[in-house]
Amino acid sequence: MKKTLREKIIYPDDKRLLVEEALAHYFSSGETYPQVVYEAMRHSLFSGGKRFRPVLTLLSAEAFGCEPEDVLPTACAVEYIHTYSLIHDDLPAIDDDEMRRGQPTCHILFGEDIAILAGDALLAEAFYLIASLQKGEPSKTVQVIGELAEASSARGMVGGQVADIISTGKQVDASTLEFIHTRKTGRLIQAAARVGAILANASEEEMEILSTYAHYLGLAFQITDDILDVVGQAEVLGKKVGADQHQLKATFPDTFGLNKAMEMAREATDRAIEALDKLRADTSSLANLARFVCAREK
Amino acid sequence: MKKTLREKIIYPDDKRLLVEEALAHYFSSGETYPQVVYEAMRHSLFSGGKRFRPVLTLLSAEAFGCEPEDVLPTACAVEYIHTYSLIHDDLPAIDDDEMRRGQPTCHILFGEDIAILAGDALLAEAFYLIASLQKGEPSKTVQVIGELAEASSARGMVGGQVADIISTGKQVDASTLEFIHTRKTGRLIQAAARVGAILANASEEEMEILSTYAHYLGLAFQITDDILDVVGQAEVLGKKVGADQHQLKATFPDTFGLNKAMEMAREATDRAIEALDKLRADTSSLANLARFVCAREK
Repeated sequence: MKKTLREKIIYPDDKRLLVEEALAHYFSSGETYPQVVYEAMRHSLFSGGKRFRPVLTLLSAEAFGCEPEDVLPTACAVEYIHTYSLIHDDLPAIDDDEMRRGQPTCHILFGEDIAILAGDALLAEAFYLIASLQKGEPSKTVQVIGELAEASSARGMVGGQVADIISTGKQVDASTLEFIHTRKTGRLIQAAARVGAILANASEEEMEILSTYAHYLGLAFQITDDILDVVGQAEVLGKKVGADQHQLKATFPDTFGLNKAMEMAREATDRAIEALDKLRADTSSLANLARFVCAREK
Repeated sequence: MKKTLREKIIYPDDKRLLVEEALAHYFSSGETYPQVVYEAMRHSLFSGGKRFRPVLTLLSAEAFGCEPEDVLPTACAVEYIHTYSLIHDDLPAIDDDEMRRGQPTCHILFGEDIAILAGDALLAEAFYLIASLQKGEPSKTVQVIGELAEASSARGMVGGQVADIISTGKQVDASTLEFIHTRKTGRLIQAAARVGAILANASEEEMEILSTYAHYLGLAFQITDDILDVVGQAEVLGKKVGADQHQLKATFPDTFGLNKAMEMAREATDRAIEALDKLRADTSSLANLARFVCAREK
Protein backbone atom coordinates (compact mmCIF):
# COMPACT_ATOMS: atom_id res chain seq x y z
CA MET A 1 0.00 0.00 0.00
CA LYS A 2 2.72 2.43 1.04
CA LYS A 3 4.73 1.61 -2.09
CA THR A 4 1.78 2.26 -4.40
CA LEU A 5 1.23 5.62 -2.76
CA ARG A 6 4.87 6.62 -3.06
CA GLU A 7 4.92 5.83 -6.80
CA LYS A 8 2.20 8.33 -7.55
CA ILE A 9 3.52 11.26 -5.56
CA ILE A 10 4.64 14.07 -7.81
CA TYR A 11 4.25 17.66 -6.64
CA PRO A 12 2.33 19.76 -9.21
CA ASP A 13 5.27 21.93 -10.21
CA ASP A 14 3.48 23.27 -13.27
CA LYS A 15 0.97 24.92 -10.94
CA ARG A 16 3.70 26.09 -8.61
CA LEU A 17 5.39 27.79 -11.57
CA LEU A 18 2.15 29.54 -12.50
CA VAL A 19 1.92 30.84 -8.95
CA GLU A 20 5.58 31.97 -8.90
CA GLU A 21 5.19 33.90 -12.13
CA ALA A 22 1.94 35.51 -11.04
CA LEU A 23 3.37 36.52 -7.64
CA ALA A 24 6.39 38.11 -9.33
CA HIS A 25 4.09 39.94 -11.73
CA TYR A 26 1.60 41.22 -9.15
CA PHE A 27 4.20 42.19 -6.61
CA SER A 28 6.45 44.15 -8.96
CA SER A 29 3.70 46.38 -10.31
CA GLY A 30 3.26 48.51 -7.18
CA GLU A 31 5.03 51.59 -5.87
CA THR A 32 8.45 51.24 -4.32
CA TYR A 33 8.70 53.97 -1.69
CA PRO A 34 9.41 53.59 1.19
CA GLN A 35 11.64 50.87 -0.23
CA VAL A 36 12.38 49.03 3.01
CA VAL A 37 8.82 47.81 3.50
CA TYR A 38 8.63 46.46 -0.05
CA GLU A 39 12.01 44.75 0.45
CA ALA A 40 10.74 43.16 3.65
CA MET A 41 7.54 41.97 1.97
CA ARG A 42 9.53 40.68 -1.00
CA HIS A 43 12.05 38.88 1.23
CA SER A 44 9.33 36.85 2.90
CA LEU A 45 7.17 36.38 -0.19
CA PHE A 46 10.03 35.07 -2.33
CA SER A 47 12.02 32.96 0.09
CA GLY A 48 11.15 29.66 -1.53
CA GLY A 49 8.43 27.39 -0.29
CA LYS A 50 6.16 24.97 -2.09
CA ARG A 51 3.31 27.45 -2.61
CA PHE A 52 1.12 24.69 -1.25
CA ARG A 53 -1.95 26.84 -0.50
CA PRO A 54 -2.19 28.71 -3.83
CA VAL A 55 -1.46 25.48 -5.70
CA LEU A 56 -4.39 23.95 -3.82
CA THR A 57 -6.59 26.87 -4.97
CA LEU A 58 -5.60 26.25 -8.60
CA LEU A 59 -6.16 22.47 -8.36
CA SER A 60 -9.51 22.96 -6.70
CA ALA A 61 -10.67 25.45 -9.35
CA GLU A 62 -9.45 23.10 -12.07
CA ALA A 63 -11.26 20.10 -10.59
CA PHE A 64 -14.54 22.02 -10.94
CA GLY A 65 -13.86 23.02 -14.54
CA CYS A 66 -12.22 26.43 -14.21
CA GLU A 67 -8.92 27.38 -15.88
CA PRO A 68 -6.22 27.68 -13.19
CA GLU A 69 -5.03 30.92 -14.83
CA ASP A 70 -8.42 32.50 -14.11
CA VAL A 71 -8.06 32.26 -10.33
CA LEU A 72 -4.46 33.47 -9.99
CA PRO A 73 -5.24 36.77 -8.18
CA THR A 74 -7.12 34.83 -5.50
CA ALA A 75 -4.48 32.07 -5.32
CA CYS A 76 -1.71 34.66 -4.87
CA ALA A 77 -3.78 36.48 -2.24
CA VAL A 78 -3.88 33.22 -0.28
CA GLU A 79 -0.06 33.14 -0.40
CA TYR A 80 0.10 36.79 0.75
CA ILE A 81 -2.04 35.88 3.75
CA HIS A 82 0.06 32.81 4.52
CA THR A 83 3.25 34.89 4.26
CA TYR A 84 1.90 37.64 6.52
CA SER A 85 1.05 35.00 9.14
CA LEU A 86 4.57 33.55 9.01
CA ILE A 87 6.17 37.00 9.45
CA HIS A 88 4.04 37.73 12.51
CA ASP A 89 4.42 34.21 13.96
CA ASP A 90 8.21 34.55 13.79
CA LEU A 91 8.27 37.83 15.76
CA PRO A 92 10.18 37.92 19.07
CA ALA A 93 6.92 38.50 20.98
CA ILE A 94 5.38 35.36 19.44
CA ASP A 95 7.51 32.35 18.34
CA ASP A 96 10.82 34.25 18.29
CA ASP A 97 12.19 32.36 15.27
CA GLU A 98 15.37 33.55 13.61
CA MET A 99 15.41 31.22 10.61
CA ARG A 100 12.80 30.14 8.13
CA ARG A 101 13.31 28.25 4.87
CA GLY A 102 17.07 28.48 5.36
CA GLN A 103 17.06 32.28 5.59
CA PRO A 104 16.92 34.87 8.36
CA THR A 105 13.34 35.76 9.28
CA CYS A 106 11.88 39.13 8.34
CA HIS A 107 12.46 40.89 11.68
CA ILE A 108 16.05 39.64 11.87
CA LEU A 109 16.83 41.35 8.56
CA PHE A 110 14.58 44.41 8.73
CA GLY A 111 13.81 44.96 12.42
CA GLU A 112 10.68 44.27 14.40
CA ASP A 113 8.86 47.46 13.42
CA ILE A 114 9.24 46.91 9.68
CA ALA A 115 8.39 43.20 10.02
CA ILE A 116 5.13 43.96 11.84
CA LEU A 117 4.20 46.52 9.18
CA ALA A 118 5.28 44.34 6.24
CA GLY A 119 2.98 41.61 7.58
CA ASP A 120 0.14 44.10 7.96
CA ALA A 121 0.68 45.34 4.41
CA LEU A 122 0.61 41.81 2.97
CA LEU A 123 -2.72 41.07 4.67
CA ALA A 124 -4.26 44.29 3.31
CA GLU A 125 -2.67 43.73 -0.10
CA ALA A 126 -4.23 40.27 -0.30
CA PHE A 127 -7.72 41.73 -0.25
CA TYR A 128 -6.72 44.49 -2.65
CA LEU A 129 -5.39 41.92 -5.11
CA ILE A 130 -8.68 40.04 -5.17
CA ALA A 131 -10.87 43.15 -5.21
CA SER A 132 -8.93 44.77 -8.03
CA LEU A 133 -7.91 41.85 -10.23
CA GLN A 134 -10.08 38.78 -9.68
CA LYS A 135 -12.39 38.43 -12.69
CA GLY A 136 -15.83 36.84 -12.61
CA GLU A 137 -19.18 37.44 -10.93
CA PRO A 138 -18.73 40.18 -8.26
CA SER A 139 -20.93 38.16 -5.89
CA LYS A 140 -18.39 35.32 -6.09
CA THR A 141 -15.54 37.75 -5.45
CA VAL A 142 -17.33 38.98 -2.32
CA GLN A 143 -17.82 35.38 -1.19
CA VAL A 144 -14.12 34.63 -1.72
CA ILE A 145 -13.08 37.71 0.28
CA GLY A 146 -15.46 36.75 3.09
CA GLU A 147 -14.05 33.22 3.17
CA LEU A 148 -10.42 34.35 3.38
CA ALA A 149 -11.17 37.16 5.84
CA GLU A 150 -12.97 34.76 8.16
CA ALA A 151 -10.16 32.20 7.86
CA SER A 152 -7.70 34.94 8.91
CA SER A 153 -9.80 36.28 11.77
CA ALA A 154 -10.05 35.39 15.47
CA ARG A 155 -12.45 32.62 14.41
CA GLY A 156 -9.67 31.25 12.19
CA MET A 157 -5.88 31.59 12.13
CA VAL A 158 -5.59 34.23 14.85
CA GLY A 159 -7.80 32.21 17.20
CA GLY A 160 -5.65 29.13 16.62
CA GLN A 161 -2.45 31.07 17.20
CA VAL A 162 -3.78 32.59 20.44
CA ALA A 163 -5.03 29.20 21.67
CA ASP A 164 -1.54 27.85 20.90
CA ILE A 165 0.07 30.66 22.89
CA ILE A 166 -2.11 30.19 25.96
CA SER A 167 -1.59 26.40 25.81
CA THR A 168 2.19 26.63 25.62
CA GLY A 169 3.88 24.81 28.47
CA LYS A 170 0.65 23.04 29.42
CA GLN A 171 -0.36 19.45 28.78
CA VAL A 172 -3.29 19.87 26.40
CA ASP A 173 -6.07 17.39 25.68
CA ALA A 174 -6.92 16.10 22.22
CA SER A 175 -9.80 18.52 21.70
CA THR A 176 -7.69 21.61 22.49
CA LEU A 177 -4.99 20.31 20.16
CA GLU A 178 -7.59 19.87 17.46
CA PHE A 179 -8.98 23.37 18.11
CA ILE A 180 -5.51 24.87 17.75
CA HIS A 181 -4.61 23.10 14.56
CA THR A 182 -7.88 23.20 12.70
CA ARG A 183 -7.67 26.99 13.07
CA LYS A 184 -4.00 27.86 13.07
CA THR A 185 -3.08 25.84 9.99
CA GLY A 186 -6.20 24.02 8.87
CA ARG A 187 -8.56 26.90 8.33
CA LEU A 188 -6.49 28.72 5.69
CA ILE A 189 -5.78 25.45 3.89
CA GLN A 190 -9.50 24.74 3.83
CA ALA A 191 -10.22 28.27 2.62
CA ALA A 192 -7.58 27.93 -0.10
CA ALA A 193 -9.45 24.92 -1.47
CA ARG A 194 -12.88 26.49 -1.03
CA VAL A 195 -12.11 29.76 -2.84
CA GLY A 196 -10.97 27.86 -5.93
CA ALA A 197 -14.25 25.96 -5.92
CA ILE A 198 -16.32 29.11 -5.29
CA LEU A 199 -14.79 30.80 -8.34
CA ALA A 200 -15.44 27.63 -10.38
CA ASN A 201 -19.13 27.79 -9.43
CA ALA A 202 -19.17 24.55 -7.47
CA SER A 203 -22.58 23.63 -6.03
CA GLU A 204 -23.31 23.74 -2.31
CA GLU A 205 -23.10 19.98 -2.11
CA GLU A 206 -19.75 19.97 -3.89
CA MET A 207 -18.50 22.74 -1.57
CA GLU A 208 -19.38 20.61 1.42
CA ILE A 209 -17.55 17.56 0.14
CA LEU A 210 -14.52 19.65 -0.81
CA SER A 211 -14.52 21.21 2.68
CA THR A 212 -14.34 17.73 4.21
CA TYR A 213 -11.41 16.87 1.94
CA ALA A 214 -9.64 20.12 2.83
CA HIS A 215 -10.30 19.67 6.55
CA TYR A 216 -8.51 16.30 6.57
CA LEU A 217 -5.83 17.63 4.23
CA GLY A 218 -5.11 20.44 6.71
CA LEU A 219 -5.04 17.97 9.58
CA ALA A 220 -2.62 15.68 7.71
CA PHE A 221 -0.49 18.70 6.90
CA GLN A 222 -0.23 19.82 10.52
CA ILE A 223 0.41 16.37 11.97
CA THR A 224 3.16 15.82 9.38
CA ASP A 225 4.61 19.23 10.25
CA ASP A 226 4.75 18.26 13.92
CA ILE A 227 6.32 14.90 13.05
CA LEU A 228 8.94 16.55 10.82
CA ASP A 229 9.81 18.86 13.69
CA VAL A 230 10.77 15.75 15.65
CA VAL A 231 12.30 13.45 13.01
CA GLY A 232 13.12 15.77 10.07
CA GLN A 233 16.55 16.97 9.06
CA ALA A 234 17.34 20.61 9.73
CA GLU A 235 19.11 21.06 6.41
CA VAL A 236 16.13 19.73 4.47
CA LEU A 237 13.58 21.73 6.50
CA GLY A 238 15.58 24.98 6.46
CA LYS A 239 14.76 25.66 10.09
CA LYS A 240 15.64 24.39 13.53
CA VAL A 241 14.41 20.86 14.31
CA GLY A 242 12.88 20.43 17.76
CA ALA A 243 11.67 24.03 17.89
CA ASP A 244 8.19 22.97 19.02
CA GLN A 245 9.51 20.98 21.94
CA HIS A 246 11.95 23.73 22.79
CA GLN A 247 9.04 26.19 22.92
CA LEU A 248 6.86 23.66 24.77
CA LYS A 249 4.25 23.85 22.02
CA ALA A 250 1.32 21.48 21.94
CA THR A 251 2.01 18.94 19.18
CA PHE A 252 0.56 15.65 17.95
CA PRO A 253 3.69 13.54 18.69
CA ASP A 254 3.79 15.09 22.14
CA THR A 255 0.14 14.36 22.90
CA PHE A 256 -0.18 10.96 21.19
CA GLY A 257 3.38 9.66 20.75
CA LEU A 258 5.27 9.51 17.45
CA ASN A 259 3.87 6.23 16.13
CA LYS A 260 0.27 7.11 16.83
CA ALA A 261 0.82 10.56 15.26
CA MET A 262 2.17 8.92 12.08
CA GLU A 263 -0.84 6.65 11.96
CA MET A 264 -3.12 9.68 12.43
CA ALA A 265 -1.45 11.48 9.52
CA ARG A 266 -2.04 8.47 7.25
CA GLU A 267 -5.62 8.18 8.46
CA ALA A 268 -6.34 11.85 7.81
CA THR A 269 -4.89 11.48 4.31
CA ASP A 270 -7.10 8.46 3.65
CA ARG A 271 -10.18 10.34 4.81
CA ALA A 272 -9.31 13.32 2.60
CA ILE A 273 -9.04 11.04 -0.43
CA GLU A 274 -12.20 9.12 0.50
CA ALA A 275 -14.18 12.36 0.58
CA LEU A 276 -13.13 13.09 -2.99
CA ASP A 277 -14.71 9.82 -4.17
CA LYS A 278 -18.11 11.44 -3.66
CA LEU A 279 -17.41 14.06 -6.33
CA ARG A 280 -18.11 13.47 -9.99
CA ALA A 281 -15.24 15.79 -10.97
CA ASP A 282 -11.71 14.62 -11.85
CA THR A 283 -10.11 14.84 -8.47
CA SER A 284 -6.95 12.85 -9.13
CA SER A 285 -4.67 15.85 -8.67
CA LEU A 286 -6.33 16.76 -5.36
CA ALA A 287 -5.87 13.18 -4.19
CA ASN A 288 -2.27 13.29 -5.29
CA LEU A 289 -1.70 16.47 -3.29
CA ALA A 290 -3.04 14.77 -0.16
CA ARG A 291 -0.61 11.89 -0.68
CA PHE A 292 2.23 14.36 -1.11
CA VAL A 293 1.37 16.08 2.16
CA CYS A 294 1.59 12.85 4.10
CA ALA A 295 4.81 11.62 2.46
CA ARG A 296 6.74 14.91 2.27
CA GLU A 297 10.11 15.36 3.91
CA LYS A 298 9.86 19.13 4.37
CA MET B 1 -14.78 84.67 10.55
CA LYS B 2 -13.52 82.53 13.40
CA LYS B 3 -16.56 83.40 15.52
CA THR B 4 -19.02 82.44 12.77
CA LEU B 5 -17.27 79.12 12.36
CA ARG B 6 -17.31 78.35 16.07
CA GLU B 7 -21.05 78.95 16.31
CA LYS B 8 -21.84 76.20 13.83
CA ILE B 9 -19.61 73.48 15.20
CA ILE B 10 -21.59 70.62 16.64
CA TYR B 11 -20.25 67.10 16.39
CA PRO B 12 -22.81 64.75 14.77
CA ASP B 13 -23.49 62.70 17.89
CA ASP B 14 -26.58 61.08 16.36
CA LYS B 15 -24.30 59.42 13.82
CA ARG B 16 -21.75 58.54 16.47
CA LEU B 17 -24.48 56.79 18.43
CA LEU B 18 -25.50 54.79 15.36
CA VAL B 19 -21.89 53.67 14.99
CA GLU B 20 -21.55 52.78 18.70
CA GLU B 21 -24.68 50.64 18.63
CA ALA B 22 -23.68 48.91 15.41
CA LEU B 23 -20.16 48.19 16.69
CA ALA B 24 -21.56 46.69 19.88
CA HIS B 25 -23.97 44.59 17.85
CA TYR B 26 -21.47 43.29 15.27
CA PHE B 27 -18.74 42.65 17.78
CA SER B 28 -20.81 40.68 20.25
CA SER B 29 -22.17 38.22 17.71
CA GLY B 30 -18.95 36.25 17.21
CA GLU B 31 -17.34 33.37 19.04
CA THR B 32 -15.63 34.01 22.35
CA TYR B 33 -12.81 31.48 22.60
CA PRO B 34 -9.92 32.06 23.10
CA GLN B 35 -11.37 34.81 25.26
CA VAL B 36 -8.22 36.88 25.68
CA VAL B 37 -8.02 37.90 22.03
CA TYR B 38 -11.66 39.03 22.01
CA GLU B 39 -11.05 40.97 25.23
CA ALA B 40 -8.04 42.67 23.67
CA MET B 41 -9.99 43.56 20.53
CA ARG B 42 -12.90 44.79 22.62
CA HIS B 43 -10.66 46.88 24.88
CA SER B 44 -9.27 48.84 21.95
CA LEU B 45 -12.51 48.98 19.97
CA PHE B 46 -14.57 50.34 22.87
CA SER B 47 -12.16 52.70 24.60
CA GLY B 48 -14.01 55.85 23.64
CA GLY B 49 -13.07 58.01 20.71
CA LYS B 50 -15.14 60.18 18.42
CA ARG B 51 -15.72 57.50 15.77
CA PHE B 52 -14.64 60.20 13.35
CA ARG B 53 -13.96 57.94 10.37
CA PRO B 54 -17.17 55.84 10.45
CA VAL B 55 -19.20 59.01 11.10
CA LEU B 56 -17.60 60.46 7.97
CA THR B 57 -18.69 57.35 6.04
CA LEU B 58 -22.28 57.82 7.22
CA LEU B 59 -22.31 61.56 6.40
CA SER B 60 -20.82 60.96 2.99
CA ALA B 61 -23.39 58.26 2.17
CA GLU B 62 -26.17 60.52 3.40
CA ALA B 63 -24.99 63.48 1.33
CA PHE B 64 -25.42 61.35 -1.79
CA GLY B 65 -28.89 60.18 -0.84
CA CYS B 66 -28.25 56.90 0.99
CA GLU B 67 -29.68 56.06 4.42
CA PRO B 68 -26.81 56.08 6.97
CA GLU B 69 -28.17 52.83 8.44
CA ASP B 70 -27.55 51.09 5.12
CA VAL B 71 -23.79 51.56 5.22
CA LEU B 72 -23.16 50.61 8.85
CA PRO B 73 -21.21 47.39 8.18
CA THR B 74 -18.76 49.34 6.00
CA ALA B 75 -18.59 52.27 8.45
CA CYS B 76 -17.80 49.89 11.33
CA ALA B 77 -15.20 48.10 9.20
CA VAL B 78 -13.46 51.46 8.79
CA GLU B 79 -13.36 51.77 12.60
CA TYR B 80 -11.99 48.20 12.91
CA ILE B 81 -9.17 49.14 10.52
CA HIS B 82 -8.46 52.38 12.38
CA THR B 83 -8.40 50.50 15.70
CA TYR B 84 -6.07 47.81 14.37
CA SER B 85 -3.68 50.54 13.19
CA LEU B 86 -3.68 52.18 16.64
CA ILE B 87 -2.92 48.87 18.39
CA HIS B 88 0.04 48.18 16.12
CA ASP B 89 1.28 51.81 16.21
CA ASP B 90 1.37 51.70 20.01
CA LEU B 91 3.54 48.54 20.14
CA PRO B 92 6.95 48.76 21.83
CA ALA B 93 8.69 48.09 18.50
CA ILE B 94 6.88 51.04 16.87
CA ASP B 95 5.73 54.10 18.90
CA ASP B 96 5.99 52.41 22.30
CA ASP B 97 2.95 54.20 23.75
CA GLU B 98 1.55 53.10 27.10
CA MET B 99 -1.59 55.25 27.21
CA ARG B 100 -4.29 56.03 24.68
CA ARG B 101 -7.60 57.75 25.30
CA GLY B 102 -6.88 57.77 29.03
CA GLN B 103 -6.41 54.01 29.23
CA PRO B 104 -3.48 51.59 29.05
CA THR B 105 -2.74 50.53 25.48
CA CYS B 106 -3.55 47.02 24.29
CA HIS B 107 -0.08 45.49 24.75
CA ILE B 108 0.24 46.97 28.25
CA LEU B 109 -2.91 45.13 29.32
CA PHE B 110 -2.68 41.95 27.24
CA GLY B 111 0.98 41.57 26.28
CA GLU B 112 2.71 42.19 22.99
CA ASP B 113 1.83 38.85 21.42
CA ILE B 114 -1.90 39.20 22.01
CA ALA B 115 -1.84 42.88 20.93
CA ILE B 116 -0.19 42.01 17.61
CA LEU B 117 -2.73 39.25 17.00
CA ALA B 118 -5.73 41.32 18.14
CA GLY B 119 -4.70 43.98 15.60
CA ASP B 120 -4.34 41.34 12.90
CA ALA B 121 -7.77 39.93 13.72
CA LEU B 122 -9.43 43.37 13.55
CA LEU B 123 -7.98 43.98 10.09
CA ALA B 124 -9.23 40.62 8.82
CA GLU B 125 -12.56 41.07 10.60
CA ALA B 126 -13.07 44.42 8.85
CA PHE B 127 -13.15 42.74 5.46
CA TYR B 128 -15.31 39.91 6.76
CA LEU B 129 -17.83 42.42 8.11
CA ILE B 130 -18.20 44.08 4.72
CA ALA B 131 -18.19 40.84 2.72
CA SER B 132 -20.77 39.18 4.94
CA LEU B 133 -23.10 42.04 5.92
CA GLN B 134 -22.86 45.00 3.54
CA LYS B 135 -26.02 45.00 1.42
CA GLY B 136 -26.26 46.38 -2.11
CA GLU B 137 -24.74 45.67 -5.52
CA PRO B 138 -21.90 43.14 -5.07
CA SER B 139 -19.80 45.13 -7.54
CA LYS B 140 -20.01 48.12 -5.16
CA THR B 141 -19.04 45.90 -2.23
CA VAL B 142 -15.96 44.75 -4.15
CA GLN B 143 -15.08 48.38 -4.90
CA VAL B 144 -15.44 49.32 -1.23
CA ILE B 145 -13.18 46.45 -0.15
CA GLY B 146 -10.59 47.41 -2.76
CA GLU B 147 -10.65 51.02 -1.57
CA LEU B 148 -10.14 50.13 2.11
CA ALA B 149 -7.56 47.44 1.37
CA GLU B 150 -5.51 49.85 -0.71
CA ALA B 151 -5.79 52.55 1.95
CA SER B 152 -4.44 50.03 4.50
CA SER B 153 -1.61 48.72 2.29
CA ALA B 154 1.99 49.82 1.77
CA ARG B 155 0.62 52.37 -0.72
CA GLY B 156 -1.52 53.77 2.12
CA MET B 157 -1.31 53.67 5.91
CA VAL B 158 1.58 51.22 6.17
CA GLY B 159 3.66 53.22 3.69
CA GLY B 160 3.03 56.39 5.69
CA GLN B 161 3.92 54.70 8.96
CA VAL B 162 7.15 53.28 7.52
CA ALA B 163 8.11 56.66 6.00
CA ASP B 164 7.47 58.17 9.43
CA ILE B 165 9.72 55.58 11.09
CA ILE B 166 12.61 56.08 8.69
CA SER B 167 12.26 59.89 9.00
CA THR B 168 12.31 59.86 12.80
CA GLY B 169 15.14 61.96 14.19
CA LYS B 170 15.79 63.56 10.80
CA GLN B 171 14.88 67.04 9.64
CA VAL B 172 12.36 66.32 6.89
CA ASP B 173 11.32 68.57 4.03
CA ALA B 174 7.73 69.60 3.32
CA SER B 175 7.19 66.99 0.63
CA THR B 176 8.30 64.09 2.86
CA LEU B 177 6.06 65.41 5.63
CA GLU B 178 3.18 65.52 3.18
CA PHE B 179 3.95 62.00 1.95
CA ILE B 180 3.91 60.69 5.52
CA HIS B 181 0.67 62.33 6.53
CA THR B 182 -1.38 61.93 3.38
CA ARG B 183 -0.75 58.20 3.80
CA LYS B 184 -0.48 57.55 7.52
CA THR B 185 -3.63 59.45 8.50
CA GLY B 186 -5.06 61.00 5.35
CA ARG B 187 -5.56 57.95 3.20
CA LEU B 188 -7.95 56.11 5.55
CA ILE B 189 -9.91 59.32 6.18
CA GLN B 190 -10.22 59.78 2.44
CA ALA B 191 -11.25 56.16 2.00
CA ALA B 192 -13.84 56.50 4.80
CA ALA B 193 -15.50 59.30 2.83
CA ARG B 194 -15.17 57.56 -0.52
CA VAL B 195 -16.71 54.23 0.55
CA GLY B 196 -19.85 56.03 1.77
CA ALA B 197 -20.16 57.71 -1.60
CA ILE B 198 -19.46 54.48 -3.53
CA LEU B 199 -22.31 52.73 -1.71
CA ALA B 200 -24.57 55.72 -2.41
CA ASN B 201 -23.84 55.38 -6.13
CA ALA B 202 -22.07 58.72 -6.49
CA SER B 203 -20.92 59.51 -10.04
CA GLU B 204 -17.24 59.56 -10.99
CA GLU B 205 -17.25 63.34 -11.01
CA GLU B 206 -18.83 63.45 -7.57
CA MET B 207 -16.27 60.91 -6.30
CA GLU B 208 -13.47 63.14 -7.50
CA ILE B 209 -14.83 66.23 -5.76
CA LEU B 210 -15.46 64.27 -2.56
CA SER B 211 -11.90 62.92 -2.69
CA THR B 212 -10.56 66.48 -2.82
CA TYR B 213 -12.71 67.40 0.19
CA ALA B 214 -11.50 64.35 2.09
CA HIS B 215 -7.88 64.94 1.16
CA TYR B 216 -7.95 68.41 2.75
CA LEU B 217 -10.04 67.13 5.64
CA GLY B 218 -7.35 64.51 6.37
CA LEU B 219 -4.64 67.13 6.11
CA ALA B 220 -6.48 69.47 8.51
CA PHE B 221 -6.99 66.53 10.87
CA GLN B 222 -3.29 65.64 10.95
CA ILE B 223 -2.02 69.20 11.29
CA THR B 224 -4.47 69.76 14.17
CA ASP B 225 -3.30 66.50 15.74
CA ASP B 226 0.30 67.67 15.60
CA ILE B 227 -0.68 71.08 17.03
CA LEU B 228 -2.63 69.46 19.87
CA ASP B 229 0.42 67.37 20.68
CA VAL B 230 2.25 70.63 21.35
CA VAL B 231 -0.45 72.85 22.90
CA GLY B 232 -3.17 70.41 24.04
CA GLN B 233 -3.89 69.37 27.60
CA ALA B 234 -2.98 65.84 28.57
CA GLU B 235 -6.16 65.31 30.58
CA VAL B 236 -8.33 66.33 27.63
CA LEU B 237 -6.36 64.32 25.07
CA GLY B 238 -6.08 61.20 27.25
CA LYS B 239 -2.48 60.68 26.20
CA LYS B 240 0.93 62.18 26.80
CA VAL B 241 1.41 65.64 25.33
CA GLY B 242 4.73 66.20 23.59
CA ALA B 243 5.01 62.54 22.57
CA ASP B 244 5.88 63.46 18.97
CA GLN B 245 8.74 65.68 20.01
CA HIS B 246 9.90 63.13 22.56
CA GLN B 247 10.00 60.53 19.78
CA LEU B 248 11.56 63.04 17.35
CA LYS B 249 8.67 62.53 14.93
CA ALA B 250 8.29 64.72 11.87
CA THR B 251 5.40 67.14 12.57
CA PHE B 252 3.90 70.26 11.02
CA PRO B 253 4.71 72.58 13.97
CA ASP B 254 8.25 71.23 13.94
CA THR B 255 8.74 71.79 10.21
CA PHE B 256 6.82 75.06 9.81
CA GLY B 257 6.52 76.54 13.31
CA LEU B 258 3.34 76.61 15.40
CA ASN B 259 1.74 79.73 13.90
CA LYS B 260 2.26 78.66 10.32
CA ALA B 261 0.94 75.19 11.16
CA MET B 262 -2.22 76.72 12.63
CA GLU B 263 -2.67 78.79 9.49
CA MET B 264 -2.18 75.68 7.36
CA ALA B 265 -4.87 73.82 9.31
CA ARG B 266 -7.34 76.65 8.70
CA GLU B 267 -6.36 76.79 5.03
CA ALA B 268 -6.85 73.03 4.58
CA THR B 269 -10.27 73.31 6.24
CA ASP B 270 -11.25 76.14 3.90
CA ARG B 271 -10.16 74.14 0.87
CA ALA B 272 -12.13 71.11 2.04
CA ILE B 273 -15.26 73.24 2.38
CA GLU B 274 -14.64 74.99 -0.95
CA ALA B 275 -14.48 71.63 -2.73
CA LEU B 276 -17.95 70.78 -1.42
CA ASP B 277 -19.41 73.86 -3.11
CA LYS B 278 -19.01 72.07 -6.44
CA LEU B 279 -21.46 69.35 -5.42
CA ARG B 280 -25.18 69.69 -5.90
CA ALA B 281 -25.85 67.49 -2.85
CA ASP B 282 -26.60 68.82 0.66
CA THR B 283 -23.10 68.90 2.05
CA SER B 284 -23.71 71.05 5.13
CA SER B 285 -22.93 68.22 7.54
CA LEU B 286 -19.67 67.40 5.72
CA ALA B 287 -18.69 71.09 5.89
CA ASN B 288 -19.57 71.12 9.58
CA LEU B 289 -17.34 68.09 10.17
CA ALA B 290 -14.42 69.89 8.54
CA ARG B 291 -14.95 72.88 10.83
CA PHE B 292 -15.07 70.57 13.83
CA VAL B 293 -11.75 68.98 12.86
CA CYS B 294 -10.01 72.33 12.77
CA ALA B 295 -11.52 73.64 16.01
CA ARG B 296 -11.39 70.47 18.14
CA GLU B 297 -9.52 70.29 21.40
CA LYS B 298 -8.87 66.54 21.34
